[in-house]
Amino acid sequence: MRRLAAIAPALLGAVGLATNAGTALAADVKEIGSFHIGGEQLTLQGLPIKELVYTAGGPPTKMDPNGDFHTGQMYVQYVKLANPKARYPLLLWHGGGLTGVTWETKPDGKPGWQMYFINAGHDVYVSDAVERGRASWSRFPEVYTSEPVFRTKKEAWEAFRIGPDGSYTTDPAQRKAHAGQLFPIAAFDVFAMQSVPRWVSNDAKTQAAYNALVAKVCPCVIVVHSQGGNFGFNAALAAPDKVKGLIVVEPSGAPPETANLASVKDVPQLIVWGDYIPQSELWTKLSQASLKYHKALAGMGGKVDLVSLPEKGIKGNGHMLMMDTNSDQVADLVQKWMSDRGLMK
Amino acid sequence: MRRLAAIAPALLGAVGLATNAGTALAADVKEIGSFHIGGEQLTLQGLPIKELVYTAGGPPTKMDPNGDFHTGQMYVQYVKLANPKARYPLLLWHGGGLTGVTWETKPDGKPGWQMYFINAGHDVYVSDAVERGRASWSRFPEVYTSEPVFRTKKEAWEAFRIGPDGSYTTDPAQRKAHAGQLFPIAAFDVFAMQSVPRWVSNDAKTQAAYNALVAKVCPCVIVVHSQGGNFGFNAALAAPDKVKGLIVVEPSGAPPETANLASVKDVPQLIVWGDYIPQSELWTKLSQASLKYHKALAGMGGKVDLVSLPEKGIKGNGHMLMMDTNSDQVADLVQKWMSDRGLMK
Repeated sequence: MRRLAAIAPALLGAVGLATNAGTALAADVKEIGSFHIGGEQLTLQGLPIKELVYTAGGPPTKMDPNGDFHTGQMYVQYVKLANPKARYPLLLWHGGGLTGVTWETKPDGKPGWQMYFINAGHDVYVSDAVERGRASWSRFPEVYTSEPVFRTKKEAWEAFRIGPDGSYTTDPAQRKAHAGQLFPIAAFDVFAMQSVPRWVSNDAKTQAAYNALVAKVCPCVIVVHSQGGNFGFNAALAAPDKVKGLIVVEPSGAPPETANLASVKDVPQLIVWGDYIPQSELWTKLSQASLKYHKALAGMGGKVDLVSLPEKGIKGNGHMLMMDTNSDQVADLVQKWMSDRGLMK
Repeated sequence: MRRLAAIAPALLGAVGLATNAGTALAADVKEIGSFHIGGEQLTLQGLPIKELVYTAGGPPTKMDPNGDFHTGQMYVQYVKLANPKARYPLLLWHGGGLTGVTWETKPDGKPGWQMYFINAGHDVYVSDAVERGRASWSRFPEVYTSEPVFRTKKEAWEAFRIGPDGSYTTDPAQRKAHAGQLFPIAAFDVFAMQSVPRWVSNDAKTQAAYNALVAKVCPCVIVVHSQGGNFGFNAALAAPDKVKGLIVVEPSGAPPETANLASVKDVPQLIVWGDYIPQSELWTKLSQASLKYHKALAGMGGKVDLVSLPEKGIKGNGHMLMMDTNSDQVADLVQKWMSDRGLMK
């Protein structure tokens, strides 16, 4: 692969902002709430009626699957502060086969990026994309045109660059992680409990819901991860005036050169990559799109920064770096970038 | 049906505790976090390999659906206070075809019971049961033995006693709600966005995860709704020393007379029913089990109270009473009961 180049000299300085030891909230919470957004009403017809017992001991009930449903919505939960230090709310968008839980308490039980950024003074919105988690999902093949995909532990272990291809075993004691790995290996099976099914045929619906979210709660800053990369890049293209900053962590894709990149050249963007990319055939391939995107945008004077953590001396982060033992260190880097880009008060 | 009898004279007094106007938090939040609990590892074999494109523009990837997964887990999110006034954490368990969102912001945008009980001084745990929301779900028919069930808007409208059977129409303007209905009718289509698929074959798995949750975070007080009723009753039967109070809102079932009711006769229990039961053939049937349970337990001197809201003069509540415009009034009643039962400091 083309190597990742760290081209943001300003970021090469020390990254050692105050980290948040323990689990205590350092901020004054004003409000906790949630909502669903996006999608549309859908009516199904012609499906056979069934008879079901819903509760043990309950009577059989006729179940007519035909009728009106809502489809294509996503779920959003927010924590708002009495005195935010950030200029805009911070939206955290997860990756494929996962939910907003990505940003919450880490598999090792320690606070994750949701808590970090609340403590750093942001109003934080954690969401579940269409078809994931509390967003709900719709019938297939009647509504979704493909079958769901369930990620195995082996796929997670390898695709998230916790260990090299072929190093996963059912027995936790026999698994061989990458040397220096900072993912909490002992909590890998706990992490596997966060997996949710995904579909490969719903990108347009997911993007539409994200765009509706941006229209509702922005101006904002968005942090996206993995599959969320394209959704974040496209949300900025759709509403460059609303997206005041975009932090793209390990994006699995990026807009093609035919996209109207000039429209987002004034949107501050930070692309972050972890370690072990050359050891992964998958990520060597997948990272290319964002490298091209960065080069094209930088070439037209865009406010885009690309950081390779290992090239900055931060080694041992895999794909789920917000769960790694040094997650606060990487968050410090993101927080400093936001500060440098004028996104804090 | 046998009419619901209000047999808790102590509860017949005024229910007008301080309600929580607006959305501001009145409590000092110490910690927000989440975890998954329960279930087991599962290995699938013999399923065909597929080739998929995960991200638009990405390369095709071989997807082997065989391997190790976690199944049977549930999701729990908590908000802990710096100075709780309650003696125990409060667990909120949702009903069928729904998630923990039941307890969060109401479909009309106002604060729900999660916020009410946080403001009343409880550490509050909101969870998604096995197969729902952020708990994730597993393949069928390979893991779950039945197909998922998707609730139509018509079924929700009728089964949740918002309007009489036959009164749902696709056009919101033509829907005829029960007279005096306190569900925010204009937000019914917003509420429909909270629906998630359910299975009728997973009760044992769901119960096991709930029991694991009780073992982890209790002693506690549990509020359950609808399908959650049986899970709550059974959790108390499984760990009567851990469940210090059980508030059962509109339970769709209850343990049979063959259950060891004597073991839970010292567990304070409150069963709450809303309005329009006689107008609903479904709920006239489903409410019988809890009426029998109450009678049997009361007959042996159990600490069990049964409240019919309309018989107390609180009229207009349907099945989703925690979302009704008077949700704070019903929460006041529950809060007063907890206080009377010695569950507050």
